[in-house]
Order: sequence, then C-alpha cells, then structure tokens
Amino acid sequence: MSDRIYNFSAGPAILPEPVLLRAREALWNYQDSGVGVMEHSHRGPEFTEILEDADALCRRLANIPDNYRVLFLQGGASSQFYMVPMNLLRPPHTADYVDTGVWSTKAIKEAQRFGGVHVAASNAESGFSALPVHYVWSDAPAYVHYTSNNTIRGTQFRQPPAVPKGAPIVCDASSDIFSQPIDIEAHGLIYAGAQKNLGPAGVTLVIIRDDLVAAGHDDIPTMLQYRTHSQAGSRFNTPPVFGVYVLREVLAWLEGLGGLEAMAAHNRAKAAVIYEYLDQSQLFRGTAEVASRSLMNICFRTDSPELDTAFIAEAAARGLAGLKGHRVVGGMRASVYNAFPAAGCNALVAFMEEFERKHS
Amino acid sequence: MSDRIYNFSAGPAILPEPVLLRAREALWNYQDSGVGVMEHSHRGPEFTEILEDADALCRRLANIPDNYRVLFLQGGASSQFYMVPMNLLRPPHTADYVDTGVWSTKAIKEAQRFGGVHVAASNAESGFSALPVHYVWSDAPAYVHYTSNNTIRGTQFRQPPAVPKGAPIVCDASSDIFSQPIDIEAHGLIYAGAQKNLGPAGVTLVIIRDDLVAAGHDDIPTMLQYRTHSQAGSRFNTPPVFGVYVLREVLAWLEGLGGLEAMAAHNRAKAAVIYEYLDQSQLFRGTAEVASRSLMNICFRTDSPELDTAFIAEAAARGLAGLKGHRVVGGMRASVYNAFPAAGCNALVAFMEEFERKHS
Repeated sequence: MSDRIYNFSAGPAILPEPVLLRAREALWNYQDSGVGVMEHSHRGPEFTEILEDADALCRRLANIPDNYRVLFLQGGASSQFYMVPMNLLRPPHTADYVDTGVWSTKAIKEAQRFGGVHVAASNAESGFSALPVHYVWSDAPAYVHYTSNNTIRGTQFRQPPAVPKGAPIVCDASSDIFSQPIDIEAHGLIYAGAQKNLGPAGVTLVIIRDDLVAAGHDDIPTMLQYRTHSQAGSRFNTPPVFGVYVLREVLAWLEGLGGLEAMAAHNRAKAAVIYEYLDQSQLFRGTAEVASRSLMNICFRTDSPELDTAFIAEAAARGLAGLKGHRVVGGMRASVYNAFPAAGCNALVAFMEEFERKHS
Repeated sequence: MSDRIYNFSAGPAILPEPVLLRAREALWNYQDSGVGVMEHSHRGPEFTEILEDADALCRRLANIPDNYRVLFLQGGASSQFYMVPMNLLRPPHTADYVDTGVWSTKAIKEAQRFGGVHVAASNAESGFSALPVHYVWSDAPAYVHYTSNNTIRGTQFRQPPAVPKGAPIVCDASSDIFSQPIDIEAHGLIYAGAQKNLGPAGVTLVIIRDDLVAAGHDDIPTMLQYRTHSQAGSRFNTPPVFGVYVLREVLAWLEGLGGLEAMAAHNRAKAAVIYEYLDQSQLFRGTAEVASRSLMNICFRTDSPELDTAFIAEAAARGLAGLKGHRVVGGMRASVYNAFPAAGCNALVAFMEEFERKHS
C-alpha cells in the first residue's frame, strides 16, 4: 500500500490503485492526444470510445440483455429517489416500497409527492437490524422499490424480494452494485451512485428496461425523462467526463480480476474474516442479524460508547481510517467495497484482537 | 506546452496546467492523508476544507455579498433550465426570457412547463449573430433570464440587460463566468456549468440571493429545492468531490494571477489578437456583429465550406485542436477560456496567415 492507508470510508470510498495510477497519467495527456481526459469534448472520439467501452463493460460484466439501456447520469441516488416516481408513478396508481432504513425512507418520502405509496414491508421496529420477513403488497403496484444493501445498518438482500407478478422491481443498488452477480432480468430498473463500487462521486449508473423508458411520463422536464438520456446515449447534455472515464477503468479492472463471480468470492472471503472474529469476540459484536448481514458494510460495536470512540481513534492512528459508524447509529462500520483489499480486513482483525486483549 | 497541444474545445475545455499537475498528486495521496482526494468522505475534514475554500475563493474573486449563497450542484446548466422555473415560476406568473440562441431557447422550452414565459427580446431573425437591441418586458415578471455568453454564435453581453425595477435577473453564465468582473448584486441568481472556466464537467456553480432561496416552492422534490442545498451547505447528498476539488484549484490559480480584473485584461488581449486578424483578412471573417462579439468563443469562417473543412483538419494536424464550429452553424470556433494561453492565440493567427497566403 506504499504511502496509502486502509480507507474504510462508506463513500466516497477506496478506489483500485491501478485505476488511480492510470488516471494520473490520463489527466495530463490522454492516450497521446495531447489533451487531458478531463479536457476532451464529450462529443469527440476519445470520450465516445470511453462511453461505449463503459457501456460494453457493464453489459459483459452483468449479462445485461439487449432490451435494457445503460445510462450514465448525475445527481446520485438522491436524484433517482424523485426521478423514478416522477417518471413512473402518478395518481391513482400506487408504488410499493420496502423500508429497510434511512435510504429507503428517503426514497419513500420523495415518492409520496407523485402518487400513492404503500410500504409493503418494514423492520423499523427492530431498528432495521434485519431485513423484513413479511411483505404485504398492494394491488398491481406501479413498481416495487427496494434498497439492496443498507450502508447504515449493514444489511443486504441476497436476492430481490418476491413481488406480485408483473410488478417491475426498482433497486437502489448504490452500495453493492457489481459486488456479486446480479439478476438484471429480475429488475425493471437498477440505479447506483458510483462512489462506492464504481468510481468517484458524481456519476450515477442507471440500468433500465426499454418498456419503462417508454412508459415514463413525457410532460416532465426533458432532463428528468429517462427517454431523453436513452435516446441521446447519455449525451443529451455534457456528462461528467472524468467520472465516466474512472468508472470505465474500474469496470475494466473488475473484468481483469475475473468479473462478478470472482469479485463475489473475494468479497465473501474479506467479510468472513471480520464476521468470524466478531462472532467469537467477547468485546465486539456485529449489530446486524446474521441472516441479513452485508458483505459491504460491517457494522459492529462494543457495549461502551467510550470504548468505541477510543477504538476508532486508535485504529485511525494505525492507518485504519474511516471506521466511525453513521451518526444515526454510532458504533463502528468497516466498509469493504470491491476495491478494498483483503490485507486491510486482516489488519483490522489484528488490531481488534490487540484492542480486545488490552480491554478484557 | 510540453507534450500537450492547443485545445480550442468549447467544453469540456482546457484547464490550467498547474492545476492538472496538482490534481495528479492529489489523486494518489491527498496532503499526506494516505487517501486520494476522490476517495475522501464528503463529511471528512479534508473535503470540508476544500468546500469552504471553494466558497471563500468565489466570494473573494467576485465580491459576493453575505446575502448570497454559493452552491456546488450537479447536472450542468441543463438542470438549471428546469430548476430555476420549478422553484421560482408558477401560474399565473410569467417569467421573461431573452432569446440569444440555442441555450436560451432550451431554457425557454423548459420554463414553459412551469408557468407563463414571455420572450422579451430575440434576434432569431438575424440568426442570433447579434445581441437584441429592443426589449419588451411583461408586467412584473417573476424573473428575467438571459445567457451572458453564447458559445454557438459567439456573442456576449457586456452587462446585464436593463430590466423592469424589482425583477430578479437570472443569468446562465456557463461560458463566461469569472472571465471578467461580474456585478453579483445586479443579479438574483447566477448559474454555470463548470466545464468551461471553472473545472471539469459535473459541477454546477449556483450563486443565489437569500430571498430567492426562501421564495422557492417547497412542494417540489427535496433535491430540486435551492433551500435544501443552501441549508446543507451543498452536502445534502454526496457532492462531486473531485470536481469541487479541481474547481477550488482553478479558483486558487485565478486568484494567484490577480483575480477577475487581471483575467479580463488577459482575455481581452487574447481575443484581440484573433479579431484583429479576422478584421483585415481577405479569406476569413468573424460571424458575430462587432458590438456583440464574445471574448470566449470566436466564431469565424471562409466563404467556402470545403475550405473550412480543410482549415480545421490542417490546424488539427499542427496541434491546434477543437476548432470545428458547432454543428448548428458550421464554420470555425476558437474557444479561448481563462485557461487558454495567449501563445495559442498567436499560434492560431500564424497558421491562419499561412493558410490565407496559400489560398489567396
């Protein structure tokens, strides 16, 4: 890791080092064009190739069928929270939402401006520490929305919820996209802010089925219609050129490592090291229920907020940074996205052992 | 210029070389934090300092009064086309727009979804080659919107239009922001995509007066309310961290060169070299009327489309890239934003002289 530390930040998050090294070169003179990658016209041949490459890589990695579009937008998942219902929901129709914590709660709030919203399942009462078990769907929902991985509570779906036949499933996959194989055809729309598994903050990946592009309302602002970006191949307006470039490099790195199956094995092994330690620890405990545990965000704590604070500070001094849990829940959180190295998980466990010995 | 060429691209556009060199270092290990600037949490101390710096630099450079907010958003000017009227226009009210070409025409189209739109002036009949002279305002417009510099036709306002007393002026300053001193207090809201004078594509600067923040509708999506980003200091959601970092570096570079007065002198001198050549040329001619000429985008042509094509190709082979005019108008366009060096303007004129000798 040379002069770099282990960065457990929940996002913006660690990026693959080979990608950073390539990006450094690209900033000054991209592929001997005499122009840095940030400075190239979004209509020129260099960026056209980057965009086509990024699209093709997404399609190869996730087996995306031809009747889905891959869009590179801006505004993060927070913009999809309103863009999805603005396009796809209108009275008298209702959309069903699965409430698994802060991010889905925000998505629900925005959807309520556009039509009926039915919360089909929630585990709010358990403090969102487990995924819901019981679902009650509305009749013919316009779509069903769920958040595949919950960064704050450290829970993650193993597969999409079983929804009423014909209801398109919309997934906020911001924090686990491409961390494992994904069943695209089970979904109508998948969106993800890039800043955890895909690249830098400022790019949003949207994978959307053609019928939902066509079904979107056309009396809303041009920029907020999926059809606009679908028809223009993500170049209706100036896309975030550098962000898309980095995303392309991250996807190429991912493919070089063997794709999503290989990445899933890597991520399972990384998380296992930490969860196995937590499960036998007398000092630390994981906060998510075992069956709902996330492979991306591992939330844990001691029984003492003071000890948690000491742990976070001492870890940071050892080059284990970004372990503070979200302010809503406190405690600790180790975010170990695709680019996070196994060695960092081992280093964390070694430090937890040392800390536990000292405080037992 | 080492291994780099002269990049006349209209945007994304050339960035200052000292900024690129600093960004290269920041990508790997920002200020010895052990983490690259793209990988830092947007809530951490490093990015907090970047954001505060960017705000302070904007305020110092443009003398922004305390009753204005500086926001760093996403989605480009194209998103402001709908966000401005979504916040500030609703029936029975009318907003007045000045139509000076493609970009203002797009802004008008989006505003029409939200309320009355009155085109107070247009020079469409002259092909937008000059700015309007006659304005007819509506009674008490909600606001007046104009585009300070028109990249496609190469026209630029010297000062905001004289509007009815009390009407807030909204300015799309995407292509000339901070290229010269700007009278903030004459405006209610100024917005600019970063990718010409401020930084990379993917960041939008919005400077908005407090009363307009407060006047914005609150029954629209949370992310689309200016108040949301004002209250959250541009961190309601994850901002485009790297883009804001580069913008901060560009502003620091600009301040180091002497600020907006110094930059205006630099830009006037750069443009003068090219316009003076055009005004005596027998082969080339500028396409914008003299009094409306832009200092940022210098549009010109010969009388032969074939010769134009040859010129663009031969110039590119000499390392003078990006001179092709917008597809709507054809011909040539030299975009010479803040970061474009005077030496590049001299090199262009030298090549024009050579080309003219050959073809006279």
